[in-house]
Amino acid sequence: MINYKGIQRVIITYVSPQVDNGQFPAKAAINESITLSADIFSDGHDEISASAFIKKPNGEEWTELPMNFVINDHWAINLIPDQIGFYEFRIEGWVDHYKTWSKGLQKKYEAGQDIRVELQIGAKIIEQAANVSTTNNTKLLEWSSSLINPANPADAVQLATSDEVAAVMYHYRHPAAVTSYPSTLKIEVERKKAAYSTWYELFPRSASPDPGKHGTFKDVIGLLPRVAKMGFDVLYFPPIHPIGEKNRKGKNNSLTAGADNPGSPWAIGNRKGGHKAIHPQLGTLKDFKLLIKEAKTLGIELAMDIAYQCAPDHPYVKSHPQWFKWRPDGTVQYAENPPKKYEDILPFNFETDDWQNLWSELKSVVDYWIDAGVTIFRIDNPHTKSFFFWEWMIGEVRKVHPEVLFLAEAFTRPRIMERLAKAGFNQSYTYYTWRNTKSELEEYMTLLTKTDMRYYYRPNFWPNTPDILPPVLINGGENAHIMRLILAATLSSNYGLYGPVYEYGINKPHGAKEEYVDNEKYEIKHWNWDEYTRIGEIITLINRIRRQNPALQTTWNIEFGATSNDQIICYAKADLRSGNLLIVAVNLDVFHTQAANVKIPFEKLGIKPLQNYIVHDLLSGEKYRWHNEWNYVQLNPYQMPAHVFKVEQL
Amino acid sequence: MINYKGIQRVIITYVSPQVDNGQFPAKAAINESITLSADIFSDGHDEISASAFIKKPNGEEWTELPMNFVINDHWAINLIPDQIGFYEFRIEGWVDHYKTWSKGLQKKYEAGQDIRVELQIGAKIIEQAANVSTTNNTKLLEWSSSLINPANPADAVQLATSDEVAAVMYHYRHPAAVTSYPSTLKIEVERKKAAYSTWYELFPRSASPDPGKHGTFKDVIGLLPRVAKMGFDVLYFPPIHPIGEKNRKGKNNSLTAGADNPGSPWAIGNRKGGHKAIHPQLGTLKDFKLLIKEAKTLGIELAMDIAYQCAPDHPYVKSHPQWFKWRPDGTVQYAENPPKKYEDILPFNFETDDWQNLWSELKSVVDYWIDAGVTIFRIDNPHTKSFFFWEWMIGEVRKVHPEVLFLAEAFTRPRIMERLAKAGFNQSYTYYTWRNTKSELEEYMTLLTKTDMRYYYRPNFWPNTPDILPPVLINGGENAHIMRLILAATLSSNYGLYGPVYEYGINKPHGAKEEYVDNEKYEIKHWNWDEYTRIGEIITLINRIRRQNPALQTTWNIEFGATSNDQIICYAKADLRSGNLLIVAVNLDVFHTQAANVKIPFEKLGIKPLQNYIVHDLLSGEKYRWHNEWNYVQLNPYQMPAHVFKVEQL
Repeated sequence: MINYKGIQRVIITYVSPQVDNGQFPAKAAINESITLSADIFSDGHDEISASAFIKKPNGEEWTELPMNFVINDHWAINLIPDQIGFYEFRIEGWVDHYKTWSKGLQKKYEAGQDIRVELQIGAKIIEQAANVSTTNNTKLLEWSSSLINPANPADAVQLATSDEVAAVMYHYRHPAAVTSYPSTLKIEVERKKAAYSTWYELFPRSASPDPGKHGTFKDVIGLLPRVAKMGFDVLYFPPIHPIGEKNRKGKNNSLTAGADNPGSPWAIGNRKGGHKAIHPQLGTLKDFKLLIKEAKTLGIELAMDIAYQCAPDHPYVKSHPQWFKWRPDGTVQYAENPPKKYEDILPFNFETDDWQNLWSELKSVVDYWIDAGVTIFRIDNPHTKSFFFWEWMIGEVRKVHPEVLFLAEAFTRPRIMERLAKAGFNQSYTYYTWRNTKSELEEYMTLLTKTDMRYYYRPNFWPNTPDILPPVLINGGENAHIMRLILAATLSSNYGLYGPVYEYGINKPHGAKEEYVDNEKYEIKHWNWDEYTRIGEIITLINRIRRQNPALQTTWNIEFGATSNDQIICYAKADLRSGNLLIVAVNLDVFHTQAANVKIPFEKLGIKPLQNYIVHDLLSGEKYRWHNEWNYVQLNPYQMPAHVFKVEQL
Repeated sequence: MINYKGIQRVIITYVSPQVDNGQFPAKAAINESITLSADIFSDGHDEISASAFIKKPNGEEWTELPMNFVINDHWAINLIPDQIGFYEFRIEGWVDHYKTWSKGLQKKYEAGQDIRVELQIGAKIIEQAANVSTTNNTKLLEWSSSLINPANPADAVQLATSDEVAAVMYHYRHPAAVTSYPSTLKIEVERKKAAYSTWYELFPRSASPDPGKHGTFKDVIGLLPRVAKMGFDVLYFPPIHPIGEKNRKGKNNSLTAGADNPGSPWAIGNRKGGHKAIHPQLGTLKDFKLLIKEAKTLGIELAMDIAYQCAPDHPYVKSHPQWFKWRPDGTVQYAENPPKKYEDILPFNFETDDWQNLWSELKSVVDYWIDAGVTIFRIDNPHTKSFFFWEWMIGEVRKVHPEVLFLAEAFTRPRIMERLAKAGFNQSYTYYTWRNTKSELEEYMTLLTKTDMRYYYRPNFWPNTPDILPPVLINGGENAHIMRLILAATLSSNYGLYGPVYEYGINKPHGAKEEYVDNEKYEIKHWNWDEYTRIGEIITLINRIRRQNPALQTTWNIEFGATSNDQIICYAKADLRSGNLLIVAVNLDVFHTQAANVKIPFEKLGIKPLQNYIVHDLLSGEKYRWHNEWNYVQLNPYQMPAHVFKVEQL
């Protein structure tokens, strides 16, 4: 006896989405279309059919979705998930003898061949279906017998090839002949905020209206209407915990802090508490909860910073010395990257024998703040903690709180950033900050949106952060700030700004470093929140454009168009369901007016090229009549470095 | 208790070679280098190490091969297999505390820092290794204590970072901290013929020296010295079995055969026997075995055609009617592609309930001819038989006879051709026959050699077959025959010709079809084997060049060079072990002289660009002095459409 797959003839391969062979779920967002696809084929010339089966979160039943043949053995079906949580899907394919027969019958009939024996063959196929059918037995037997004794051949052919018969016959398959793809795959469907969010970062300690005073949560409550009016829906704070006093850093990261230096918020913990405590000068837990509540009423979620590291005077160091590395001289091991030393920070030792208690405690920090109302966490330097810890922690948290989102703050090598995303991070910082030229931007967007990364890595674009002042902002001033803002906000549906500094166009570097001098990380700032800035006005405008145009609320729909000038980048985004189509053209040269012919990538967007249409610039309000694919743009960076056109069809 | 991966910190991903997640073995050839690689990384800044472990065919032990860091978390090691059969490999990675420490020590020492405590830390790491070491205990304890009490810091640093200590310390890892890639993967190592072979196809029935006589195996024995002299090492015959008499096809595939029409050898079986019988006019089994033996003495292997299909009078139809499809009118189902009919051929029904006996019988056909001495099978139309049958059959045969090779004769859609190769076929026909332009050829070669296909699909390039006379040969005459021959023979290490027709440059099509008129498939031909032809001379020459230049004995080493003229294609192949470097330039225009500047892709070949070198054209014998990367070629297709340069370095 040969022990093998017998009469199975269909092969199913290259099933998508599938992350690392199904080791991780693919990511999707509620109400956002995702394509299930596979290459499916059989030997020989027989017709095949294929179905995807999906099971919803907490569902019991599998729903069958017949797949569509696309091209070259590729089959696909679109799914628009309407629940958050883990969907499952599997795929089956089979040789479809009814379909083979009915197509052959049609051709033979059209070629004028004698089809009497053919009709008998079909009658037998339908009769076999009747024999196993409980619901359609009578109907099938009727069809079968009307084919054996047809009134006339034309009617028989019409019946045999009718949609009605095809629909019923779709369900009858010889079980031993069905090929099931061996894995059941998972799709993690997240709430819309995972896919579309607009972040504003500020240091609450700099929120006071009074110069020289330490800001408080209450001060931030006063700023919420301003943040909302600018169109942000996530307000992100650096850590809010007590700051280490031992080895505290002074202004500009100096080794010695003056008595009035507040220290870096990322040096977490002192005698007043650690990761579950609040810096006393910011306010109380009650104030914090009130802030979260007030923000919510304005459509803003608070994102909290989780930095799993300790100042030397963090309570953990005494209560859980086994979580740190100790040196032969009895001192604790600081963070270092030889020969550099970071003496205000102690890393956790993830190789401790007590790793289980360490993991539990770290997770309890997140749980604590979720209980306080936090729904989004920005995780500091996740790439310096065990990948398996993240996989476990995020998985456990989201089992109970599927609405909670984690942003990975890793700016490191590609494989590491990818793996953190696979481990469960819902959003990730990116290399956008350093992608400047047309080819760099196109290549990076293609990697993010047209490769498997699209299924696990959800980018969040930041033109700046408290740690990063890139050369383009240093050199290009206000023009560059506006250009990089518009790019971030239109390339990626998730983007964010380290706020006040960006609004004011502050761009003085710390010597030769790509960092802000007099960095807010080490000192309290005072901002004049009421001052008008042009950058602020454009932030408000671009965020409104994002809100009003669904095409900008997903990252995956981008298509680039050719341009006759490398200083001009052009891309289009379409939301086919609502008919919303945007065309963006940006002048990447921050000093000179540039012009180009740009080609609108209608075909790649899945749209028939328009012959004659109006493009309405949502930034300037101007309208132009455009024709066909190639059109002309000219952009002066001192006026406005970009067009964000909405296409108004004629 | 958290049940998870604990202190493991290393991630291993994108392991290569790996075909469909390890579902199929990767293919390699004996003595041909294959790279084992993976992306391997850890969180944080610690150093890591990684090893591949390999087990040879029938071996018991795993051999550890330390992997080398390449770039961006990519690690690799080359393996040159020296046995045929299934190798297994797996990969492990771990955080290497010794390496982290010794590199940090070096940097701190160079920065003038106090390293006393550092030396104590290292002494501890080495002492821990000593505690678990059986073979190096004494040595490790000695090193450890000499670091605790160093005579002077410089000596201690030198010892700590020495190759000797590093080599010993490589073997000590905390078992719980080692990450093992979860799959053990397989590599099927085949004999050299799988990777490098030169095929000549002839119909033995046309081998007679006497016009009008049916050729015999004995006649073919007489031709063997000619085939060997031309440089072929595989002689391939269409089927040699009795030919069906019922519905036999006449000349030019006509529906009615005359009494003296021999029929198509692919319509297998009549009352005299089936797939295990020999056509009586060809000779006896004894003659056939003698032919195999004589061929072997000349370095030629016989490739037999296996076509799993039956003429209507094949003995199986009566003895095993359950293996065929029967129609309601009592007739047997012919092959068809509605409305076309193929009445001289009955396909097997792979959905028969008796599939196990069918599979056994089909395999027994191969076994029968292996017993007769056949070592290579060319399988006709494998894409019309169940994929799982091939997987089983080839797997079972090669378990016992790993030297036996199977060539898949499928010219169909990409996924199907790929899957047959994955299922075990050792070589495959390709789309080469229809790839004509520079971009078509470069794109196709890149697909074959620079993607995962390289690990499962071994191409065999045929400029023509009895079924296929492509337009380039119809239109381009002798010039095209020479050009397409040189391309096939230098692009692919496996290539073949449907011989006599090619040598004579016969290229008259059957009407508008891309087929030979008066096709040898349906009639016996007479060839004047002694006639000189220019094509024959160049075949002999190019085959000798292939034999003398190891760079042409693998397909994977191809690198294309830019050219200033799309009518000229240029590529180079290097065998780095022997220092053999060939540069090929071909004029794709069969009617006009073309010239181009061509860029030798030294960098892609892994060779430092040569400044000043001699290129020796192995076709014409001419030599040129070339400089640097860009050089000039001019090719007249009426003289010789190609240069095949051997680089002779100065």
